[in-house]
Amino acid sequence: MISQIGYDEMTLSILDQRKLPLKIEYIKAEKLQQVCDAIKTLAVRGAPLIGVTAALGLRLVSDRYSGNELGELKAILLAAEKELRATRPTAVNLMWGLDRMLAVIALEYSSIEKLKAAVAKEAMTIWHEDVELCERMGRYGAELIPDKSHIITHCNTGALATAGIGTALGVILTAHDAGKQLHVYVDETRPLLQGGRLTAWELACAKVPFTLITDNMAAHVMKTRHVDLAITGADRIAANGDSANKIGTYSLAVVAKAHNVPFYIAAPYSTIDMNIKSGDQIVIEQRAAAEVRGFGDLIWAPECEVYNPAFDVTPAELISGIITDRGIVYPPFEQNLKRLFENE
Amino acid sequence: MISQIGYDEMTLSILDQRKLPLKIEYIKAEKLQQVCDAIKTLAVRGAPLIGVTAALGLRLVSDRYSGNELGELKAILLAAEKELRATRPTAVNLMWGLDRMLAVIALEYSSIEKLKAAVAKEAMTIWHEDVELCERMGRYGAELIPDKSHIITHCNTGALATAGIGTALGVILTAHDAGKQLHVYVDETRPLLQGGRLTAWELACAKVPFTLITDNMAAHVMKTRHVDLAITGADRIAANGDSANKIGTYSLAVVAKAHNVPFYIAAPYSTIDMNIKSGDQIVIEQRAAAEVRGFGDLIWAPECEVYNPAFDVTPAELISGIITDRGIVYPPFEQNLKRLFENE
Repeated sequence: MISQIGYDEMTLSILDQRKLPLKIEYIKAEKLQQVCDAIKTLAVRGAPLIGVTAALGLRLVSDRYSGNELGELKAILLAAEKELRATRPTAVNLMWGLDRMLAVIALEYSSIEKLKAAVAKEAMTIWHEDVELCERMGRYGAELIPDKSHIITHCNTGALATAGIGTALGVILTAHDAGKQLHVYVDETRPLLQGGRLTAWELACAKVPFTLITDNMAAHVMKTRHVDLAITGADRIAANGDSANKIGTYSLAVVAKAHNVPFYIAAPYSTIDMNIKSGDQIVIEQRAAAEVRGFGDLIWAPECEVYNPAFDVTPAELISGIITDRGIVYPPFEQNLKRLFENE
Repeated sequence: MISQIGYDEMTLSILDQRKLPLKIEYIKAEKLQQVCDAIKTLAVRGAPLIGVTAALGLRLVSDRYSGNELGELKAILLAAEKELRATRPTAVNLMWGLDRMLAVIALEYSSIEKLKAAVAKEAMTIWHEDVELCERMGRYGAELIPDKSHIITHCNTGALATAGIGTALGVILTAHDAGKQLHVYVDETRPLLQGGRLTAWELACAKVPFTLITDNMAAHVMKTRHVDLAITGADRIAANGDSANKIGTYSLAVVAKAHNVPFYIAAPYSTIDMNIKSGDQIVIEQRAAAEVRGFGDLIWAPECEVYNPAFDVTPAELISGIITDRGIVYPPFEQNLKRLFENE
């Protein structure tokens, strides 16, 4: 079991993902600045995991406050919250986690101990909720995975992206833990290689048999070897089922369709944005040219124009089902996603 | 104009492709060993270009022979031919070029000068034939490219792969030289990155506007931007039109079909193997795991099982046309490829 984050003896342990898979090293954060730096420098990444890390960062500040003025602690926590919020301005889960912490900090307390206890409790709740949410997605999704199956996945959607077992990778791990024989094809996921670096490492840790491929091999693998299903995560799902995810997901969905391979998305219910009608409304972040011209410090392409969208949108018609922590949603997505929200 | 190979004053100049695009350096070969090393270490690559390099290597040995015994020169040339043949044992064009040189060496000569002249002439003929063959492909193919068009290509198929302007890239360059406004999307072509390193550099040299992308972006580009046609090379074409080419070509053809983007192959007539009925009979070379686990000396993935086919096969039904030096062949390929050979 990978320990991506830990909190013990007023120290926040953050697995340094930049060094994976070559080194397993933890940042032992005792100060807010170390937590902010870890998020900024991508030592810790994955939207749900960043949200949990920020919440635990506030607990760290609270626990380590040695003064005895309630007002001072509140002021310190509010300042810390602002710093954490500024680390990655577009990360939705970060804002969501910090909003919950802010609401707790804003309440009236009769003592420092009570404020500290409330902050600690909310941070742990946010953490444990993410763990449980992954487990629920895993249980629902695992039913889709037949014994002795071959699965293809893209990017990293495991313990290194969440506080729990992950989304798409969590589904695979749950099926594996249930004793099913699986073989996973891992897209390396250019340009940042989250598949080659992180998913490969997670599957090796969990002893799930897998084969690493470059992204452009997926179609050839589907044609010449047997693939039962494709499964990826999602960053944002529109009301009609169109799903934004890591660049390359759309390509995988197109080639899956061409080979009659079912294509599933696994994402927490909170990823579904009912205010967005279709994928056309999802704005796609453009990233630095250097990521495509090379990797890390190594540059192999000449100075040139580069297109580097961080995400692409897979239209609903290519998606066989969306696995959420509230169950699996099947087409027609427009009706069935709405139904998911009607019980609220 | 890129000078990928040159012969002057008994020196064979070979552009060192390993150093591109960061450095433009030539190996100035004066001895056979330097030519063999350049081929072995991939300083020079691309099947047609290797064939030309080997032929010129024999000319180098012949020109530099300072003795006066005809039998001795013949023996030296036969030994040199063997050494060159062993550099890359699976390269078809290498064998083809050397076979032609062998036939010339085997003839009877009345003087050393006559043998030297015959060797020099045959080497230059092989070289110039490849240049002309590229030009003919370029002229036929350019007619398929409309003005103001957006083209997507894969791998390197230009001057760095042939002795001339190239195959698929030669078609693009010919259309550009004819004054057509073009924009090229260049697949980086993992794992060996021939697109990101070599095609990008060639297009920059030729001042053709282009955008570098990772292979998994091609589908997204076709969906969100306009692409008029896709064009790649081929390593071997079966009698029914199925075409083997660099890994990732099949994926590009599948996503092109899904977006109604015509998909063309450009390859010399000699690439068509009428003895092979379909792509199923083409054996695909598997390459080293390290190529997928990283790039060059940089390794980013853990020790793991890797699938690394050098080529894939694009079935004929995904191909809109095959541009050869004898004209463009359209479906039905089984009939029309046969017709190409009937005039022989």
